[in-house]
Amino acid sequence: VHVSDVSLASLELGPYSHFMQKEIHEQPRALTDSIEAVIDSNGFDVELFGDEAAGTFRDIDSILILAAGTSYYAGLTAKYWLESIAGLPTSVEIASEYRYRVSVPNPRQLIVTISQSGETLDTMEALKHAKSLGQTQTLSICNVQESAIPRASKLVFYTRAGAEIGVASTKAFTTQLVALFILTATLAKQRGVLSQAQEHEMLEALRQIPASVQHALNLEPQIREWAKAFANKQHALFLGRGIHYPIALEGALKLKEISYIHAEAYPAGELKHGPLALVDENMPVVVIAPNDALLEKVKSNMQEVRARGGQVYVFADLDSHFGESEGVHVIRTPRHVGLLSPILHSIPVQLLAYHTALLKGTDVDKPRNLAKSVTVE
Amino acid sequence: VHVSDVSLASLELGPYSHFMQKEIHEQPRALTDSIEAVIDSNGFDVELFGDEAAGTFRDIDSILILAAGTSYYAGLTAKYWLESIAGLPTSVEIASEYRYRVSVPNPRQLIVTISQSGETLDTMEALKHAKSLGQTQTLSICNVQESAIPRASKLVFYTRAGAEIGVASTKAFTTQLVALFILTATLAKQRGVLSQAQEHEMLEALRQIPASVQHALNLEPQIREWAKAFANKQHALFLGRGIHYPIALEGALKLKEISYIHAEAYPAGELKHGPLALVDENMPVVVIAPNDALLEKVKSNMQEVRARGGQVYVFADLDSHFGESEGVHVIRTPRHVGLLSPILHSIPVQLLAYHTALLKGTDVDKPRNLAKSVTVE
Repeated sequence: VHVSDVSLASLELGPYSHFMQKEIHEQPRALTDSIEAVIDSNGFDVELFGDEAAGTFRDIDSILILAAGTSYYAGLTAKYWLESIAGLPTSVEIASEYRYRVSVPNPRQLIVTISQSGETLDTMEALKHAKSLGQTQTLSICNVQESAIPRASKLVFYTRAGAEIGVASTKAFTTQLVALFILTATLAKQRGVLSQAQEHEMLEALRQIPASVQHALNLEPQIREWAKAFANKQHALFLGRGIHYPIALEGALKLKEISYIHAEAYPAGELKHGPLALVDENMPVVVIAPNDALLEKVKSNMQEVRARGGQVYVFADLDSHFGESEGVHVIRTPRHVGLLSPILHSIPVQLLAYHTALLKGTDVDKPRNLAKSVTVE
Repeated sequence: VHVSDVSLASLELGPYSHFMQKEIHEQPRALTDSIEAVIDSNGFDVELFGDEAAGTFRDIDSILILAAGTSYYAGLTAKYWLESIAGLPTSVEIASEYRYRVSVPNPRQLIVTISQSGETLDTMEALKHAKSLGQTQTLSICNVQESAIPRASKLVFYTRAGAEIGVASTKAFTTQLVALFILTATLAKQRGVLSQAQEHEMLEALRQIPASVQHALNLEPQIREWAKAFANKQHALFLGRGIHYPIALEGALKLKEISYIHAEAYPAGELKHGPLALVDENMPVVVIAPNDALLEKVKSNMQEVRARGGQVYVFADLDSHFGESEGVHVIRTPRHVGLLSPILHSIPVQLLAYHTALLKGTDVDKPRNLAKSVTVE
């Protein structure tokens, strides 16, 4: 058996305790590699998505994203970008749900599948199901060259995260997000709804993101402190609104997967429709990247539960004026990255899950009952 | 102050311990009243939705449902009906999310709001936001005559659940479901995609549902036994697939709201993408209304956690052949109701939440921190 030097190198942990920690810290590099072609060409060229992309993108009137797990949350994030920037109505559906229901096919809809491995069974079957309904406009966003899903798709965009060993996805997720951001800009440009100023702004946001992620990684010592408050809990609630709601979902999923803490995410506005009854000193509440207005609303909801010792942990923007107070803890992300804010805020929730799991002593890289690629139903 | 006999009567508990229990048991009557006009006219007349409905329904090409909390889950259920029966692409969005994001307006889209009280602030604001974008085709499904949301809508369908006192919605939810089922049939008929045989079948399903719900209510003693296994737990997982996934969501919400147990719902296919790591003897798994094929899949996923004592509680269809086994408990619903299966399976999850809360001694009708109508943000 020939094992190349490259794969040996990627298996080395270096200074890190776990592959997950290593992969979290590799994100500036993974993002740099994934955006390289865009930065080099200094624009959003449709050819990035393959030779047939120009014709395909011209024909479509809407988008359907199919994915599972973390990739599904990347899709939910992209819906906000695609509708607000490219003006394309976007649906996002869990692959295992879509494949088993009767939907209304639209041949002018672009089917976008997202899968790190390119081998996720439910996503592959959902793609086949879409094609069987006459949906021929298909695009795969994938991290593994020539795997099954890109091979079955008309267009493909490869993320360049490199091999991901930890079961809990980290760098695959954030590189999927930049891929979807690039897709949004490219579609908007192709449809004539992207001004030169906007294109410049989106390119600039991409250029900045690796360094901004590096700054977010530097929050690790502060987050390690917060992890102490989570490690002895059985529950957590993650709140977000709009484009940060999927990051709340991703933060809750990370904590579930590797620390076995029952973390659940809610859109902040739904707090009063049920989960507020649950919050007490045993259920810390994490709020993701809110603007100050949202924070004030969450804070007023929380007043009732403050009496029962509910603690709030806020990841806020650099320019948030929201201050710490009794029971309200704040970490500010060190840079403002505009539209790419969901990527920046992925970092602290990954670190929170990692350090909580570390304190609990779970098997971080291979959590119980979970497989890296879900190639069964 | 004049208090009518009718409202006094509706405030009497009769043989019941709580309004929630009373309202659960009122569902056969609430459903009968809500479908009365359809049954009387022996068909799905477009006038049921108002004078302007015929013209409106002719013009639309898709549907957007806006709601919050339990009403949002009714909307998620309707998506399956509307796409598979009426052939109308349907999106369902949380009102507090929709109102704050940039979406792509479509004037040919029917905006359907769902609110028991007709006063839910976020839903009202979402409706205003839609109208400000030029979306003038609006329909309100509401339980309170002449409340704010129906007054602001072009079309209205009133459910006739009667006053709902318990904070946790029960009869309002199931009557919303029949309203959405009637909407589906009416749109399908109007669009010429409903055969006479289908219309007959859907009418027959509606005629049967009150009696079938009564049969499901007779499961109460068995469910009271199951509740003992939940009352001492801090967690629960609810699984469903397809049209029963929203019922899993609703079952988890009911348990959260009144028993303060951290229950969370997942589409069954997503189990392997995270929550499977959580399941052990402290987290019972409820599976809603699965067919046998889904059950076999869930069961195979569960084998790994059976070793850690994970217990599975299945609400199955009458004709399911899935049997009890070590760690797998089954209750079969006593009738088969076809397309209305989500309504039938709402009953046991309501009863499970109610009896679990009763054993825990919580304030069933007024759970901590929750209001009946959420008229604030």
